[in-house]
Amino acid sequence: MGGPNANGDVSAVNDIEGILALNPTVNKFATFKPTVISKKDKEHWKKNEQCKTACELKNDFSDVKPTTLTERGALFEAQRCLKCVDAPCQKSCPTQLDVKSFISSIATKNYYGAAKAIFSDNPLGLSCGMVCPVSNLCEGGCNLASTEEGAIKIGGLQQFATDVFKKMNIPQIRDPSLTPIDQLPESYRARIALVGCGPTSISCATFLARLGYTDVTIFEKEQYVGGLSSAEIPQYRLPFDVVAFEVKMMTDLGVKVVYGKRLGADFTVESLKAEGYEAVYLGIGMPEAKVDRVFEGLTVGEGFYTSKDYLPLVSKGSKPGMCGCSAKLPELRGRVVVLGAGDTAFDCATSAFRCGASRVTVCFRRGFSDMRAVPEEVDIAKDERCEFLPFVLPKQVIKRDGKIVALEFYKTEKGDDGQYAVDEDQFFRVKCDYIISAFGSQIGEVADACKPLTFNKWGLADIDTLSMQSKAQEWLFCGGDLVGNGTTVEAVNDGKTASWNIHKYLQSLHGIPIPDQPQLPNFFTPIDLVDISSDFCGIKFENPFGLASATPCTSAAMIRRSFEQGWGFAVTKTFSLDKDLVTNVSPRIVRGTTSGHHFGPGQGAFLNIELISEKTCHYWCKAVTELKRDFPSKVVIASIMCGFNKEDWQELAKMAEASGADALELNLSCPHGMGERGMGLACGQNPDLVLHICKWVREAIKIPFFAKLTPNVTEVKEIALAAYNGGATGVTAINTVSGLMSLKGDASPWPAIGKEKRTTYGGVSGNATRPMALRAVSSIRRTLPDFPIMATGGADSADTCIQFLHCGAGVIQICSAVQNQDFTVVQDYITGLKAYLYMQSREDLAQWDGQSPPLTLTPYAQRKKYDNLPRFGNYLKDRIKMEVEDNQKKDILKEPAQPVAGASTEVPSVRDQINRAIPRIGVYNDLNNKEQVVALVDEDLCINCGKCYMTCNDSGYQAIKFDAKTHIPHVTDLCTGCNLCLSVCPIIDCITMVPRKIPYIPQRGIPAIQTN
Amino acid sequence: MGGPNANGDVSAVNDIEGILALNPTVNKFATFKPTVISKKDKEHWKKNEQCKTACELKNDFSDVKPTTLTERGALFEAQRCLKCVDAPCQKSCPTQLDVKSFISSIATKNYYGAAKAIFSDNPLGLSCGMVCPVSNLCEGGCNLASTEEGAIKIGGLQQFATDVFKKMNIPQIRDPSLTPIDQLPESYRARIALVGCGPTSISCATFLARLGYTDVTIFEKEQYVGGLSSAEIPQYRLPFDVVAFEVKMMTDLGVKVVYGKRLGADFTVESLKAEGYEAVYLGIGMPEAKVDRVFEGLTVGEGFYTSKDYLPLVSKGSKPGMCGCSAKLPELRGRVVVLGAGDTAFDCATSAFRCGASRVTVCFRRGFSDMRAVPEEVDIAKDERCEFLPFVLPKQVIKRDGKIVALEFYKTEKGDDGQYAVDEDQFFRVKCDYIISAFGSQIGEVADACKPLTFNKWGLADIDTLSMQSKAQEWLFCGGDLVGNGTTVEAVNDGKTASWNIHKYLQSLHGIPIPDQPQLPNFFTPIDLVDISSDFCGIKFENPFGLASATPCTSAAMIRRSFEQGWGFAVTKTFSLDKDLVTNVSPRIVRGTTSGHHFGPGQGAFLNIELISEKTCHYWCKAVTELKRDFPSKVVIASIMCGFNKEDWQELAKMAEASGADALELNLSCPHGMGERGMGLACGQNPDLVLHICKWVREAIKIPFFAKLTPNVTEVKEIALAAYNGGATGVTAINTVSGLMSLKGDASPWPAIGKEKRTTYGGVSGNATRPMALRAVSSIRRTLPDFPIMATGGADSADTCIQFLHCGAGVIQICSAVQNQDFTVVQDYITGLKAYLYMQSREDLAQWDGQSPPLTLTPYAQRKKYDNLPRFGNYLKDRIKMEVEDNQKKDILKEPAQPVAGASTEVPSVRDQINRAIPRIGVYNDLNNKEQVVALVDEDLCINCGKCYMTCNDSGYQAIKFDAKTHIPHVTDLCTGCNLCLSVCPIIDCITMVPRKIPYIPQRGIPAIQTN
Repeated sequence: MGGPNANGDVSAVNDIEGILALNPTVNKFATFKPTVISKKDKEHWKKNEQCKTACELKNDFSDVKPTTLTERGALFEAQRCLKCVDAPCQKSCPTQLDVKSFISSIATKNYYGAAKAIFSDNPLGLSCGMVCPVSNLCEGGCNLASTEEGAIKIGGLQQFATDVFKKMNIPQIRDPSLTPIDQLPESYRARIALVGCGPTSISCATFLARLGYTDVTIFEKEQYVGGLSSAEIPQYRLPFDVVAFEVKMMTDLGVKVVYGKRLGADFTVESLKAEGYEAVYLGIGMPEAKVDRVFEGLTVGEGFYTSKDYLPLVSKGSKPGMCGCSAKLPELRGRVVVLGAGDTAFDCATSAFRCGASRVTVCFRRGFSDMRAVPEEVDIAKDERCEFLPFVLPKQVIKRDGKIVALEFYKTEKGDDGQYAVDEDQFFRVKCDYIISAFGSQIGEVADACKPLTFNKWGLADIDTLSMQSKAQEWLFCGGDLVGNGTTVEAVNDGKTASWNIHKYLQSLHGIPIPDQPQLPNFFTPIDLVDISSDFCGIKFENPFGLASATPCTSAAMIRRSFEQGWGFAVTKTFSLDKDLVTNVSPRIVRGTTSGHHFGPGQGAFLNIELISEKTCHYWCKAVTELKRDFPSKVVIASIMCGFNKEDWQELAKMAEASGADALELNLSCPHGMGERGMGLACGQNPDLVLHICKWVREAIKIPFFAKLTPNVTEVKEIALAAYNGGATGVTAINTVSGLMSLKGDASPWPAIGKEKRTTYGGVSGNATRPMALRAVSSIRRTLPDFPIMATGGADSADTCIQFLHCGAGVIQICSAVQNQDFTVVQDYITGLKAYLYMQSREDLAQWDGQSPPLTLTPYAQRKKYDNLPRFGNYLKDRIKMEVEDNQKKDILKEPAQPVAGASTEVPSVRDQINRAIPRIGVYNDLNNKEQVVALVDEDLCINCGKCYMTCNDSGYQAIKFDAKTHIPHVTDLCTGCNLCLSVCPIIDCITMVPRKIPYIPQRGIPAIQTN
Repeated sequence: MGGPNANGDVSAVNDIEGILALNPTVNKFATFKPTVISKKDKEHWKKNEQCKTACELKNDFSDVKPTTLTERGALFEAQRCLKCVDAPCQKSCPTQLDVKSFISSIATKNYYGAAKAIFSDNPLGLSCGMVCPVSNLCEGGCNLASTEEGAIKIGGLQQFATDVFKKMNIPQIRDPSLTPIDQLPESYRARIALVGCGPTSISCATFLARLGYTDVTIFEKEQYVGGLSSAEIPQYRLPFDVVAFEVKMMTDLGVKVVYGKRLGADFTVESLKAEGYEAVYLGIGMPEAKVDRVFEGLTVGEGFYTSKDYLPLVSKGSKPGMCGCSAKLPELRGRVVVLGAGDTAFDCATSAFRCGASRVTVCFRRGFSDMRAVPEEVDIAKDERCEFLPFVLPKQVIKRDGKIVALEFYKTEKGDDGQYAVDEDQFFRVKCDYIISAFGSQIGEVADACKPLTFNKWGLADIDTLSMQSKAQEWLFCGGDLVGNGTTVEAVNDGKTASWNIHKYLQSLHGIPIPDQPQLPNFFTPIDLVDISSDFCGIKFENPFGLASATPCTSAAMIRRSFEQGWGFAVTKTFSLDKDLVTNVSPRIVRGTTSGHHFGPGQGAFLNIELISEKTCHYWCKAVTELKRDFPSKVVIASIMCGFNKEDWQELAKMAEASGADALELNLSCPHGMGERGMGLACGQNPDLVLHICKWVREAIKIPFFAKLTPNVTEVKEIALAAYNGGATGVTAINTVSGLMSLKGDASPWPAIGKEKRTTYGGVSGNATRPMALRAVSSIRRTLPDFPIMATGGADSADTCIQFLHCGAGVIQICSAVQNQDFTVVQDYITGLKAYLYMQSREDLAQWDGQSPPLTLTPYAQRKKYDNLPRFGNYLKDRIKMEVEDNQKKDILKEPAQPVAGASTEVPSVRDQINRAIPRIGVYNDLNNKEQVVALVDEDLCINCGKCYMTCNDSGYQAIKFDAKTHIPHVTDLCTGCNLCLSVCPIIDCITMVPRKIPYIPQRGIPAIQTN
């Protein structure tokens, strides 16, 4: 483009191969297309019909979870979360997971932090992320249900974070701050038996091991772990490797699993007690199917299954790694009737398709609006074209030649009282080849072996529901299905609840008191052992995260509370001499408009016209003294400001030093209000004034001090140099950026003060200023290689703080991120930084970008033909057809490669991170314009939006073709590698920049004139 | 807070009334709560069960549309849209609505622009936004269906924008650029009759009137307009005032409606022809219900309705303003059976609840997976606890004492061939009190009156589906239900298609040729008449929107294309003398990280290290000449750059002037690369150099020139002053902001050049820089009241461009917004600016903020008790109960006040907007700290997230109480009006700042010491 056309016009639009044909243009007229044509056309573009037919589902055990999220999806969702105070999601979770806190960590890409929060409260956090009936739990309480965007996909986020952690391949360890195992009393060596290796026992054993119990054994009747999670939840909803991973985390702590020991056959509860187990936990679920008398005597050979027969067969035939028995799937044909309308019924129905059924009908006694299963389960079945038959009750089975051929039903009817009655006069038949009964389960024969356990009138174990302790014996505890808590997450919580009460019981045997308030230990890994303290300017910082001199430090009580949440240091709000005391205007802090029309937390910017502290220097000096007295390990920095007056600066600096502050920060940069008094940035913009002020302060005090710099200058490094020459210990970069945020429709500003709606320029803070802050910090570092820098300006995560370290900062100050949320965010930064440092030591994680795992795409050469087909209309159908063909040939039980943790080197320190990026930042002339790149589009990831094509056409080089039918873009040789396409592509890693293979020759349009 | 405690500690946490109790703190231990307790607790917090019971729905005709969005919801959704090239949503819409373009306008708060795009293609755009089966149309093709976030709520956005337009109360006019009515030939005065005032006729008549036909009459059998939209779609899905509004827009253009004229009874198609109507359009739908023979002879008195009897009765009894007949609703009791599974069946079912049914069961012949109705319709019924009975076919009605008491059904079964067969041997009864048959409709008796129209074997009108012309007569056209296009939007499109073909036919009668490509006129209103041209520096700009000297001007061909899309001016990419020619590195333009982890278009920032143009000055000068030759009304500004050398600047400036450029822009501010050569910002940071360069250029040329300023200085106004003193015509403010965008996990920067992954500081552009740009423009204006300014820096909408005008700019340059999308965005800015100016002239719109309507909240004093109850758990139930009680008493047919357009004054010009904000921007000391404000929370709007409470606790003044049970915040007297709570509140207008009533006394902590 841009070369002259046949007429010699350089501005002609040379529509190379019609490349611009699809580029948007303004409509001069209404569009015109007869209905009959668009009706047909739309079928070509249909993107929301992805369902496979029954036969296409055969043998297909691939993921169907609505919870599965890509990193893009997870980040989108996590950023949308409001992180509510006293969040109802947490209150609605049986394990009381701190949902808000784990979502906060996902939003900052601290997936380890998220996983740690999840596994702390729920050792089966990944399983639960996959199978929880969230609409009835966490998501049912989400405050965003009150908005059109709807509840956050909490289950999906939980699955995402814990799945990333699984990929990290890091073992669980016991919290090292607890009393070490070898120093615990004898009572911790009590033998504890748990029966059944399902979720409730795994949870209970994990917490017992975290508490310090060393002799914990689970007896499992099968040759595989997981209980119902393995045997009855299908692979496409809960893969076996997930169960194995969670059990592995438990055995990391020393819990033993004994396989092939069946309660009743091999031992009884009483025999365990007799063998010396001091406490027994029964987590055996309900092992027998309830079967209606209509089905008595029917056999699998005739076509009859209960869910308890059927689902384990499906699992054995479809779960790689579960039992190593090379079992075949139970083969079904034709029509299958599933009875019941609980979650299990739907697992049977969807499994039936995968075993060969051509039609599946779920039949149930009640109406739709009274169905027991949660909507997310029903929806999967509905999407797979499962059929439903409500208001029926089995009457009799019709057989022919020893095979089931039909099932006769009574009609049921709902009475005005809401009760269902069977109308015995009305019945009809439904043809079917197989019947799967999913009418729930019961304790059955094994009840005897549970003695002394008793059962109540509902057939549930008789327990105290607050402690999970049996009413029969104080050493016997139960949970999960056995007590009527049927979901995985309830079973997990029962195990958790029981663990503390088992602990209480066992310690009481030894007369050892335990706290009234349960203190169940959190999840720990070697990451938590990483030391993130550092020496900075001779001061020890327990972590590099501190509160900037800003709104979070409005009062000393707030700093106190921030320290309790884990902040390493705090800089007081700036105080002055009494003569310079200020009074604020209101309103004075407004949300940014730099991230579009975004309302709520997660503001990318704020603008404030708040002045320095309204409190006196007397208040602040006393506050510093108290804070240092009560938090000796925390660093307290006093921020002060005076006019350009030696006596004032020296008086205030001495007063602040005398208060016991670890260091001072000289506020030379407040961008509004103070300047008019000759303070703040009025001083900080002038290197001479900065030099003098620093000299005065250096003369007056012994402790370190930092000059806080304004970015509202041409070269902040020159101001830093003045501070350096003036004897400052270091600098803080940057204060807020001077700006005017926005105006309303009536031309009034926001904030608008008083009836006249006046304003002044304010300070912009938050992420919008981070590019300026990263530049300032790195440019000071490049100028003064050893001058300490405290960074501030849009740090909102461990990730961004690490970028500041890499640019040369020693510690980081934060404000806007706290304004968006609360003091607890620091824990996210702490775990995030620890995880980052730990991962640097693991060779096998070298390809990760921070905590983002590398995308594992099939290399181009190994791709199937269908990988390049778009996912809509007939292309999608073709794609599915080919995928299905491939799938039928696949060995379902082939185990995926199990990841093994790679070799590790020493974990680097915070100090090792400082300046890492500096060698790569330089002047333009150092950049190599011979090593050029071009764009490459991954057709399999492409969602056909054509943003790459549009931006390349109207802001680039018209170097992308866009297929009118497939909507797949193709990069041509005209690409100059500008990278705009990647910058606007909505899909992570769909476009990558790859080295250019042909030489880059700039398009000069008309050649330069050779003058020499 | 912050006052000393009893011990005198100023840093003590004085937990006033436990205010901090719910503030988040870090968990030291796993949480502990037995399952039995959390099971109960979660019921208190349940937010996702809002469904009313059957009796609560009685008389409740309030909105249940899933499409209804608040402004927050609409902005969220609009920003999420990718604005795909060749968007499949548009291709899947029968009217081929330019969905992308209207969503783009919503995203920029240009709701008029959105409505204009919608009504241009679909005159019933508001109805269709409400009732379209979008999952099968636009949303079915949405590319985001390939992501976890899912398809955009296109129907909702369409409803939102057109509903806002409805509130604006602006008439439709005919496009004034078309031949005026009085200059059109006689052929446009042909009499045209349309039969039936439903969607298809309204659409057809509207387009005919837009084309210029002056004698268009619709004959309607009823006393009300709207056809099926009024008679059969319930009020809670399509209110009557929406229909009336769309008909009003049609009659604005002169179309006549004659009421009470019934085809068959009062006239026939042939009689119309005989009366002199030259063309007839039949849009009568299918007027008769299809009734199964099982129901023959049954009466309403016995409890039998067809949908065609029933729904109009419901409408008459529930639609205010429809027929003024004070009709009562048909009263139902007990159990209602609805037959059929199309959309109409579901309207009958949900209506039945509202007429008093206690239970409704929809019964149908096929299975669930073969149901005809779209999921969005079924979901409403499901949410209202409607029951379903698939696989049944009516056998006989059982009556007792002249009343229906039950319906007997045959069982149906689906065969292996997918066909349904009735099993006549199997049947059963379902008790019911009423039967509503919704088995579709047919032409029936009126077929005779349609003669000469013939019908095909499916009973549909025999037509050519491409032209909607009847096969019987070329003057007779049909559309909508009558031809089998049953949805509203298809009916609309049939009318649209027919309009052009009626036009074609009528003109052919007069031998007047019309274009082959249909040219149906777009929607127009007085807003489109607004003049947005202005004189700026003696140059006429047709609009104030231009392309900045940046990537969208990479080549002259691109500028050419941009002019074709409507841009008012363009600044060429900067060019240099041959000796200064550059070659770029790659990659060089990266996405911003300032708006969080956001992928795709809508980037809030970009950073680039792109140099000036790679093309020669010879190319660019020729390009300017050609552009001015071909686009004389457009303004072309040549951007040039040299080193600090008089001869160079004068040579290049003269060359550029000679090319015919309207003006020059001196690039004194490129922040990367060029500086190292002594160009760009190396010059622009120094007022002396700027002064000299401007003097040199002023000496060399006559045309206006502008100095483009860098923001990377302390006071941009000083540089502007130098340009002023140097004789520059004006300045451009601001160039990009110098920054470093981000680093990856391995400490490598992005962009990273070459194998060594090096980088340099780049220029940040986009919304993140707008606060700096608004400051720069307004501060230059305050310094130099008459100096022309071209603004640039994060302008991305009419709204933000107007802010720049208010701050003193004359015209605005844009780059990043085009990078995010394409050249067509300018049309959004044009309609947005026109709408803004027009709305300034309308007194009744004075309370709008730009195009955002004011929130019409019930004043506190008039609120019901329940307005302050939260929307979860039992509170929600109580709330519903009280609302229901109120509702039962309400007069359903009471008409809401119809808005009337207010008085208007003269529409202001662009020039009138310039500087409007300047008087309000000043120094801090001018702000009034006596007129303070405090926060007020609207409890009815509150969604209980507590963000206000958290930010006030940890970044403010602990001035908000948060109720532990109701989760409603309450602002205390400690509030200082800082505004942080409002800044992070997710709900628009939930928190407002109101004047403080008690004097503001700052909390000094420890009093200042009085020294004098």
